[in-house]
Amino acid sequence: MPTPALLVDADALEHNLATMAAALPGRRLRPHVKAHKCSALARRQAALGHTGFTCATTREVAGLARAGLGEDLLLANEVLDPGRLDALARLVEAGTARVTVAVDSDATVDAAAAAGIAEVVVDVNVGLPRCGCDPGDAGRLADRARSAGLHVRGVMGYEGQVTIIADPAERAAAVEAAMDQLQKAHADTGGDVMSAGATVSYDINTWATEIQAGSYALMDTTFAPMAPAFREALTVLATVISVSPGWSVCDAGLKSLGMDHGNPVIDGASVFIVSDEHVTFIPDPDRPVRVGDRVRVRPAHVDPTVAYHEQMHVVDGDGTVVATWPVDLRGW
Amino acid sequence: MPTPALLVDADALEHNLATMAAALPGRRLRPHVKAHKCSALARRQAALGHTGFTCATTREVAGLARAGLGEDLLLANEVLDPGRLDALARLVEAGTARVTVAVDSDATVDAAAAAGIAEVVVDVNVGLPRCGCDPGDAGRLADRARSAGLHVRGVMGYEGQVTIIADPAERAAAVEAAMDQLQKAHADTGGDVMSAGATVSYDINTWATEIQAGSYALMDTTFAPMAPAFREALTVLATVISVSPGWSVCDAGLKSLGMDHGNPVIDGASVFIVSDEHVTFIPDPDRPVRVGDRVRVRPAHVDPTVAYHEQMHVVDGDGTVVATWPVDLRGW
Repeated sequence: MPTPALLVDADALEHNLATMAAALPGRRLRPHVKAHKCSALARRQAALGHTGFTCATTREVAGLARAGLGEDLLLANEVLDPGRLDALARLVEAGTARVTVAVDSDATVDAAAAAGIAEVVVDVNVGLPRCGCDPGDAGRLADRARSAGLHVRGVMGYEGQVTIIADPAERAAAVEAAMDQLQKAHADTGGDVMSAGATVSYDINTWATEIQAGSYALMDTTFAPMAPAFREALTVLATVISVSPGWSVCDAGLKSLGMDHGNPVIDGASVFIVSDEHVTFIPDPDRPVRVGDRVRVRPAHVDPTVAYHEQMHVVDGDGTVVATWPVDLRGW
Repeated sequence: MPTPALLVDADALEHNLATMAAALPGRRLRPHVKAHKCSALARRQAALGHTGFTCATTREVAGLARAGLGEDLLLANEVLDPGRLDALARLVEAGTARVTVAVDSDATVDAAAAAGIAEVVVDVNVGLPRCGCDPGDAGRLADRARSAGLHVRGVMGYEGQVTIIADPAERAAAVEAAMDQLQKAHADTGGDVMSAGATVSYDINTWATEIQAGSYALMDTTFAPMAPAFREALTVLATVISVSPGWSVCDAGLKSLGMDHGNPVIDGASVFIVSDEHVTFIPDPDRPVRVGDRVRVRPAHVDPTVAYHEQMHVVDGDGTVVATWPVDLRGW
């Protein structure tokens, strides 16, 4: 297999999918596809009962619809581009997908209405400095949306600020505080949906009607300690292309690894330098490598890693490829 | 224009290309295409006289050959994969390209010979802990290559360790020390080529027969202070999608920005958080933004930024798109 290549450990993936499906069955989970960008993996999630999906981009929405997974797609992100919104509205008109779009301002409500979008949720800021209206403004925005002919399905809010809280009790308290705000906003907007959450809060966010977890399927070195029920399923396979007395080099690098959470990990070695096409690492003295050896590089952050790759290979315990899945939801 | 989108400032690009062509005319420069991964931009470089190119991946080699730019392509990276090496050999047999491959070990020499590669350079370590043989081993490797029927064109060595030396005099001394090692290795290998360098040493590396500069065409916030003759030509255009009292959010993020050199820069604002699809920034008090405004995000590292994008748009001073170029050399 040419390297670098994304590998998905089949056992770990199945463990992760089954663990989540047991914890949050059916529509209690709305898997976020931004983490894997792969409609084949989404199909596995749908087969386990999670038939509604969360998306971050219009390409993800369109790709899932094209794959026949359009039963209930939430674009959990603000979009102003008339062309993209129009394309979403046409998916709905064609009966290809049910599409709900997040709005958090007059401008985003008006853009959705102008494009003929049918359904929205009000995106509420619940503590992360990112998108979302002030909780106290959610009811007004819902009224504005309804006046413009939009169906308001409810609210969403991402308590992403809890991902940096390592202590479980503190994290749970932070989730509760965030969801208290979202519940108040929900009371003002009406609608059936209160969508929130993430992999790091899937087992403690008992307030949301649905959880938007994405990382759980593949995991990475950053989130693994915070969600120990799940296993790291994703690695970047690389070939050792150069060996020097003090270090060795493999052919993964900055263009095949998301780097915002820091260096990747190679078991049995210390990662030293990551450059465009190379990872320089220092093998443990008892685990020397030779030119041509294969190493598995564990990424620090799944999402921007996957986004560099055209495909992922599902491998069994022997490393045999049992499936190759296109990363078909890339781009935006 | 849908965002995020890569913009190339036409004036800055032309300034950079002209400045480099004046400093290192014709074949004194062997532009590295890994920085821009765009055959249309390579065609501009070739039109200025730089008709030999440096590549980091076999896709870059094949893409340049396909674009008619195969006059003299150096794959400045070690490759063991027989399929890829075979494809390179067939480009040469077909008369589509002249291809020279870097080798730094017995294994890479043997792999090149087995695949029918015609020409190699010996990659020599000149101080950066990455690929390259020990300078004292270069002559032996060249002999081994010639014995296997390969034509040895000379040596290459990348003095990448100087990129972190801010002081110009210290940097020049470090380049000299590195090139002293490369010259000794070159004396042992023979051949016409002594290929080295980078944008940060283009004007001080007077020893190499050709300079492998790549960043100079587009530049970024990291290298700009070290090569002040060149201008930052690349930005990621983003749309403001959400405005809160303390911060604003635009639709660039970890999947459209290389992050290994740290956060990007937005003029008139402080970048606060970069997440998968969002940059949260704090506008200067005298430069508030509104939902729908466009901002230009200046990346910290060009190479892994460009690798996320399908195309780049060349814009004039008014922001009018004068050309759209596919980033057609992505992948590996």
